[in-house]
Amino acid sequence: MAKVKVGIINVTGYAGVELARLLHGHPQVKLVSVTGRSAAGQKLAKVFPHLVDLDLNIEADLGDVDLAFCAMPHKASAEAILPLAERGVKVVDISADFRLKDAAKYPQWYDFQHPGPHLLSKAVYGLPEIYRDEIAKANLVANPGCYPTGALLALAPIVKAGLASPDIIVDSKSGVSGAGRTLTLSTHFAEAVDNVRAYSLEGHRHLPEIVQELEGLKPGFKPMVTFLPHVVPMARGILSSCYVQPDGGKLAGGKAKLQSLYCDFYKGEPFVRVVDSPPETKHTWGSNFCLVYPTVEPRTGKVIVISCIDNMVKGAAGQAIQNMNIMLGFPETAGLEALPVYP
Amino acid sequence: MAKVKVGIINVTGYAGVELARLLHGHPQVKLVSVTGRSAAGQKLAKVFPHLVDLDLNIEADLGDVDLAFCAMPHKASAEAILPLAERGVKVVDISADFRLKDAAKYPQWYDFQHPGPHLLSKAVYGLPEIYRDEIAKANLVANPGCYPTGALLALAPIVKAGLASPDIIVDSKSGVSGAGRTLTLSTHFAEAVDNVRAYSLEGHRHLPEIVQELEGLKPGFKPMVTFLPHVVPMARGILSSCYVQPDGGKLAGGKAKLQSLYCDFYKGEPFVRVVDSPPETKHTWGSNFCLVYPTVEPRTGKVIVISCIDNMVKGAAGQAIQNMNIMLGFPETAGLEALPVYP
Amino acid sequence: MAKVKVGIINVTGYAGVELARLLHGHPQVKLVSVTGRSAAGQKLAKVFPHLVDLDLNIEADLGDVDLAFCAMPHKASAEAILPLAERGVKVVDISADFRLKDAAKYPQWYDFQHPGPHLLSKAVYGLPEIYRDEIAKANLVANPGCYPTGALLALAPIVKAGLASPDIIVDSKSGVSGAGRTLTLSTHFAEAVDNVRAYSLEGHRHLPEIVQELEGLKPGFKPMVTFLPHVVPMARGILSSCYVQPDGGKLAGGKAKLQSLYCDFYKGEPFVRVVDSPPETKHTWGSNFCLVYPTVEPRTGKVIVISCIDNMVKGAAGQAIQNMNIMLGFPETAGLEALPVYP
Amino acid sequence: MAKVKVGIINVTGYAGVELARLLHGHPQVKLVSVTGRSAAGQKLAKVFPHLVDLDLNIEADLGDVDLAFCAMPHKASAEAILPLAERGVKVVDISADFRLKDAAKYPQWYDFQHPGPHLLSKAVYGLPEIYRDEIAKANLVANPGCYPTGALLALAPIVKAGLASPDIIVDSKSGVSGAGRTLTLSTHFAEAVDNVRAYSLEGHRHLPEIVQELEGLKPGFKPMVTFLPHVVPMARGILSSCYVQPDGGKLAGGKAKLQSLYCDFYKGEPFVRVVDSPPETKHTWGSNFCLVYPTVEPRTGKVIVISCIDNMVKGAAGQAIQNMNIMLGFPETAGLEALPVYP
Repeated sequence: MAKVKVGIINVTGYAGVELARLLHGHPQVKLVSVTGRSAAGQKLAKVFPHLVDLDLNIEADLGDVDLAFCAMPHKASAEAILPLAERGVKVVDISADFRLKDAAKYPQWYDFQHPGPHLLSKAVYGLPEIYRDEIAKANLVANPGCYPTGALLALAPIVKAGLASPDIIVDSKSGVSGAGRTLTLSTHFAEAVDNVRAYSLEGHRHLPEIVQELEGLKPGFKPMVTFLPHVVPMARGILSSCYVQPDGGKLAGGKAKLQSLYCDFYKGEPFVRVVDSPPETKHTWGSNFCLVYPTVEPRTGKVIVISCIDNMVKGAAGQAIQNMNIMLGFPETAGLEALPVYP
Repeated sequence: MAKVKVGIINVTGYAGVELARLLHGHPQVKLVSVTGRSAAGQKLAKVFPHLVDLDLNIEADLGDVDLAFCAMPHKASAEAILPLAERGVKVVDISADFRLKDAAKYPQWYDFQHPGPHLLSKAVYGLPEIYRDEIAKANLVANPGCYPTGALLALAPIVKAGLASPDIIVDSKSGVSGAGRTLTLSTHFAEAVDNVRAYSLEGHRHLPEIVQELEGLKPGFKPMVTFLPHVVPMARGILSSCYVQPDGGKLAGGKAKLQSLYCDFYKGEPFVRVVDSPPETKHTWGSNFCLVYPTVEPRTGKVIVISCIDNMVKGAAGQAIQNMNIMLGFPETAGLEALPVYP
Repeated sequence: MAKVKVGIINVTGYAGVELARLLHGHPQVKLVSVTGRSAAGQKLAKVFPHLVDLDLNIEADLGDVDLAFCAMPHKASAEAILPLAERGVKVVDISADFRLKDAAKYPQWYDFQHPGPHLLSKAVYGLPEIYRDEIAKANLVANPGCYPTGALLALAPIVKAGLASPDIIVDSKSGVSGAGRTLTLSTHFAEAVDNVRAYSLEGHRHLPEIVQELEGLKPGFKPMVTFLPHVVPMARGILSSCYVQPDGGKLAGGKAKLQSLYCDFYKGEPFVRVVDSPPETKHTWGSNFCLVYPTVEPRTGKVIVISCIDNMVKGAAGQAIQNMNIMLGFPETAGLEALPVYP
Repeated sequence: MAKVKVGIINVTGYAGVELARLLHGHPQVKLVSVTGRSAAGQKLAKVFPHLVDLDLNIEADLGDVDLAFCAMPHKASAEAILPLAERGVKVVDISADFRLKDAAKYPQWYDFQHPGPHLLSKAVYGLPEIYRDEIAKANLVANPGCYPTGALLALAPIVKAGLASPDIIVDSKSGVSGAGRTLTLSTHFAEAVDNVRAYSLEGHRHLPEIVQELEGLKPGFKPMVTFLPHVVPMARGILSSCYVQPDGGKLAGGKAKLQSLYCDFYKGEPFVRVVDSPPETKHTWGSNFCLVYPTVEPRTGKVIVISCIDNMVKGAAGQAIQNMNIMLGFPETAGLEALPVYP
């Protein structure tokens, strides 16, 4: 059977190159075209030696493909996707450009006027655990941000069940690759090693995405989310510690009921595992798994839900391929079966 | 002027050996005796090569000293201190054995009956920023835990000012040295590197200490503290992200008022700095400084206070020396002037 | 087609658990039995959460298998393998117990009398790039050590070509996982992080293996190998810097000739890549690739060959599976196609 | 007694800022002026928060000082120093601009014509263990490179004793701070973590410095040095493994004689310790110590000498202060007494 032809726009960032790594092992698609601005004209495996025998040149423009992954920065991504959408090419967008439904949020959070607001309602938010059916029918999927993926998978069951009060805190700890491949002083090795820091205390761009999706889970729910991201000295991984005040101050049934609620919610999910002891980011390294641990603080009654993902896989490239699999009718786990690399 | 003679009980743990490092450079005291169980009989600088020319043998029993630091594990520490207290030797205890005022908490949180409950009321909690005067008169100082030091310095101003509601969350990220020098699988390098994990979700032993001290700051205040510690892959440092619901739901004056409150509270403090941008643990590495950053989430109104310390210094050995300086009438910064090592 | 049944003796060490990870994705074999001493009776995926859905119990004794991987420590490995060899079960031994041809070396280097010296001549040294044909016919393959794999792949071409003088230095830098999962002070996180150290300066156990195999490459060649291993603060990877005095003091043809010699030697090899710029261990992380970079110091004429491997994969579990593939007539790359995980 | 006024030209690199940290604690000098290009006009402690209360502005031009440290890049450093030397200001130059005696080496190794070749013979190479007396009389001291410091302290005793053949290999492993504060892809955190790589295989700029100084130790000695630097994932530290073929092929007296030679050579040195077990970079972290371990490989007779330093201290700022102390007649250890920070 002929493989489906796919391409990556802007392969030279970490999300793009991770897509190349994972697509190389996918049984039903063939990566036929990759683009990049600075590195155009070079061999992909020369710029990224870990890709070894992946025999492609980095091009200036995308070739003929059935589905494109767009890993451009925001704004540039929307601009690159508009003509593809015109032509009916299926697209999974790694950027934030089609995640927010309200076009007015783009100037507010991303400093640009959205060039294709008519597509915002057609784009599907690519969190398969919530929108699987819509993704299957979509031509344009907005791949969730890394933090929102971890936060939403931690919070969705309790919010949807109506057991959460609006007072929600998401305290996330991310590996440094989340900041991308662009050089900055704060991602300079000697600065980032042996160090933990919080950032974006005035409001991180992933906040409106988290709020929008929590609102969507429960009509009328108006969450007040305090989201604080931190950077910790490792390459990959996000652990999110989510604190939820139970609606009414106390969770009926306690921890056992909560665990059971989560197990039911994620029953049959290929990539989410509700675990019975606190998870570690290392247990997801290089894989598309999300580990979720819900519990109740025994003295205060506060609900704590911890989630772990690999920000490059379930938080970016892996989830994009999961979305592609759903869009193309492939088994959802195709190309994503590899277990985490440990230790 | 003759130097004061000091000793360290159980020098072979990380807190003990850090005391030795710092005391070696202290202008007014002389480290004359160190004890250790497993390594007794060996040269200190043979077991710990970084101590280079520090010429002491590790002994089984403490020699004659004017002041002793006790760095034993809990229970053993109280047992070692009781006879010293009898003899009137001044003691700074690094363990938790004299931190809790209520003897009933020891069986509950530490699994032992306290052998000297009569001393609990005489011991002073060694957080100089709160108890400086009491420390100056004390014979027995209970050096605070590493997490409580960071949490309390972050929370004290707002709690004492009566601006905090009881709903408080402390989300802490600690370097691995906090787990001590005893070998465990979770502190094995290949397990701890490239990894973040939460632990003690059922209740960490530092929780009752945090609660006791917050209650002490404001008569009648009954905080509901959810405390969640995490381990991140670095040797030293604790960053605590504290979330406080303002009393009445909203903080009058906002961030500017909050910063001003904190600046006033810590005015003149030699080791606490209220900073105007989010601090990083690296900026405290090897030093006794605590950096505190108070702010308000602009959408939810939640107060966020971030503190950074070196868990080995302000979180253990450095604060113990600061306490000693106060007890002995030395300049509070003696032996602690070194700036953080960066990068 | 029915899958071949394989098992792992002592799955609970890092080599064993890495075998489980890789075998889980192998298209032609089924992992049906795993043993472990301390953890016997537990679910494999409970002890190692990254194995997620790998549904096996850790047993005390190996079940019925067509081929067994033995990941026991030395001596115990030979004892476990002897009865299997009797019964005609094919075995890949990860330990050193069948690597050395001379039984007298075992008491000298490993402190035990070999319990099955008659098998030493039947066992094949499992470096496919040298012994592929012999491996194909073998029932017992001695999987090379991690350091010897990197050193021999770096040195084989120049030694076999007769261009090396006996004066050879191998300076290796290994990630900490090479020291295994057993707890030691030197692999305690706070000790190993931010640190580089050399060890085994009196002679590392992998030295006789390196010497034996270099001698085997060129009849009459008597190398004088100085081998110095170092530990660097990362979980995985070995970079070996090999220094070879060219025979006669100067290499005819210089670097270009040397590169050409290496390219010819490794032509068609599925897992060895001769690269044209200095390789990095990160470019092999999680994969079975070995990157080799041969060059000549332009002033001294000294030949420098650098090799990089993932010590857990090409240096242990991956190479064991490569050997299994050859022994069972499978495609040599089966189950080993995954690209390195970067960054 | 009035303190001596000192300044730092280009404080904003890692060597410059480390000088500021160490000088802040020096009892006999006062840091009165610091310059920087990009950050001119800002508060030093704002750009480098770890400097806390160090109250200086970063200026465009150096103020009036008795002694200047110059931490400019090469070429710029010579240009900045020429006018100072004219005016008789004492200078310690951290750059390479006055290390090489032969002006012809600058175009060859550093790509520039030396602007003040007449000063090359007047400048003293600032390795106190070799040139203490000359440094005491010098107005211009060329502070050694980080790699040469480690290599020369490892090799000086055996070379000076005439026991080394010319065949010398220096295999060095450096922390990432050695590459400076300028942003590059190879020092981007996600690229440098979990990674080891060699670089400068065609010849590192520190090579001519090592060769020049080895030649100076023994008239007529013509070393053939193969020097290969590596980067390992930690912020600080250099471990150099030096391999020396003994003159005549064998070292009379073996390891014991060698250790005794080294102990005699470094007798009374305040910062060099000959140790009796392999040293670790962690045992020098933040301090001016150099640990040296000489031994003999028991089978090949090759001499191995391992040295460890903190590249930022003994390899740069600390040694510069040691030189200043000698130039100004202060105790050589003034301001440098702090023990290494461990763990």
